[in-house]
Amino acid sequence: MIITVTLNPALDLTYRVDALVPHGTHRVTAVDERPGGKGLNVAAVLHALGEPVLATGLLGGSTGGRVASLLGAEGVPAAFVPIGAETRRTVAVADRDDATGFWEPGPQVTAGEWAAFVAHFRDLLGGASVVALSGSLPPGIPIDGYATLIRLAASAGVHTVLDTSGAALRAGLAAGPDLAKPNAAELAALTGRETGNAAAVLEHGARAVVVSRGPLGLLALTAAGAWHGVPPERLAGNPTGAGDACVAALARGLRDLTPWPDLLADAVALSAAAVAAPSAGTFDRDTYRRLLPDVRVSAA
Amino acid sequence: MIITVTLNPALDLTYRVDALVPHGTHRVTAVDERPGGKGLNVAAVLHALGEPVLATGLLGGSTGGRVASLLGAEGVPAAFVPIGAETRRTVAVADRDDATGFWEPGPQVTAGEWAAFVAHFRDLLGGASVVALSGSLPPGIPIDGYATLIRLAASAGVHTVLDTSGAALRAGLAAGPDLAKPNAAELAALTGRETGNAAAVLEHGARAVVVSRGPLGLLALTAAGAWHGVPPERLAGNPTGAGDACVAALARGLRDLTPWPDLLADAVALSAAAVAAPSAGTFDRDTYRRLLPDVRVSAA
Repeated sequence: MIITVTLNPALDLTYRVDALVPHGTHRVTAVDERPGGKGLNVAAVLHALGEPVLATGLLGGSTGGRVASLLGAEGVPAAFVPIGAETRRTVAVADRDDATGFWEPGPQVTAGEWAAFVAHFRDLLGGASVVALSGSLPPGIPIDGYATLIRLAASAGVHTVLDTSGAALRAGLAAGPDLAKPNAAELAALTGRETGNAAAVLEHGARAVVVSRGPLGLLALTAAGAWHGVPPERLAGNPTGAGDACVAALARGLRDLTPWPDLLADAVALSAAAVAAPSAGTFDRDTYRRLLPDVRVSAA
Repeated sequence: MIITVTLNPALDLTYRVDALVPHGTHRVTAVDERPGGKGLNVAAVLHALGEPVLATGLLGGSTGGRVASLLGAEGVPAAFVPIGAETRRTVAVADRDDATGFWEPGPQVTAGEWAAFVAHFRDLLGGASVVALSGSLPPGIPIDGYATLIRLAASAGVHTVLDTSGAALRAGLAAGPDLAKPNAAELAALTGRETGNAAAVLEHGARAVVVSRGPLGLLALTAAGAWHGVPPERLAGNPTGAGDACVAALARGLRDLTPWPDLLADAVALSAAAVAAPSAGTFDRDTYRRLLPDVRVSAA
């Protein structure tokens, strides 16, 4: 089983309006509600692929209850630890041209809640082969929170994929995750240069790194070699969630010990299929099937 | 006891951002959550005045649950009827200069849920002296929904104050509420003229009308006479909720059979004190006490 960890999930709201008028009042013509957070997207993609998956993390209050009930409606197995504070919301206001985003701050997590999560996570490891750790840490969780989870997983013989940014990424890498998946911007921030150097992620402690570079595809640096994977065509669509689909493919590949060139091709095709789908956590099956044989993987 | 009816309540969210950038992504620096909807503001003001009050209406889903729990935290007595659909949210994004509002559509109410509310309302009338009916009707409620409630109240000997707009106001007036409280814009819309004629509200069926005219104060047309009430000074602040504070004062005055000039003075002072308070459903006690003796009421 693959476990996805989402410590800072969200209720993602999309509001449709005719036009955004600053300082005006808008009647929202349509509301879309989705369980949000990168780890939940990873879980949804794995579930849609028919892979056994369990989503865990922290949920609180009535907003957390809504996220849980939306996840349940999608059929994604979940076992979250309750917290006292309210799970955050994100609001995306979509007009005819583009979207404007508003991100609530994450809930304050107490030391006791974090300890309860760590204990819960340890219990789940018995049934796990791979853990995917995705997204930001809410306030109250130690900045090396992912490092704690990665060390627990390693000592239980469970592989880890880390997909986060900033100080949480840097601290998590120190625990030696099997794989880290920064995007180009996260890599640049980690290395403090305009164009980041993927090898720096290995120097920080990860055993392998896959850098997602949008339409340019994926770059993998591993102990077995280095590869580029490039999609056979450029897809128009919604890039939000493409990185999470990539993590889903990588987690499955780690579980199955898929050879790196095949794994990279799968991750490229699934990421592209996510761009072709309307919302994060979903992918277009036909695009996935069509692209997979044609992804070009070459030694880097 | 005064009953306030809120058929289309909301969870009112206020997001603080540094500056609104259309098509940008904003980290919300502070989130405020309040029970929203005009009738809930009326109930909160009456409760703060120490008046026995009961808030009723319709609440649904996890958002409705959140509204109920926030109301409970404020100590406002409430007895809402549950509906299957989710209570709406409103989002106000406040930057340094002003606010930008997003209003979700109201939930779809079924015929059975409306019938259950009418039965519930009829039961509550036994303990009531005045009913305040405030705000919009959500989808699924007949446009003459307020008229139904006003007729039930009248046959139970309970006074009614109606504060709504558009077709719901027009249809409600036909049932002869004891008092209607349009603002200048609602009056203009009712009468189809740029500046509305308060007497038209009586022609539509109300037994008395109080028109709220912002800093110009209140105009009352009643069977006993006509009066202007004008605040002694112009207050800076947040006018949202001033009309609801006015309705709270009017409902209390109807209950106590307060003479109209005194009642109008009270409503003017309480409305002004609501402007001086930071959010709807609250008022500044010092401002209320200070202004009350100095409100000028004159025959119109």
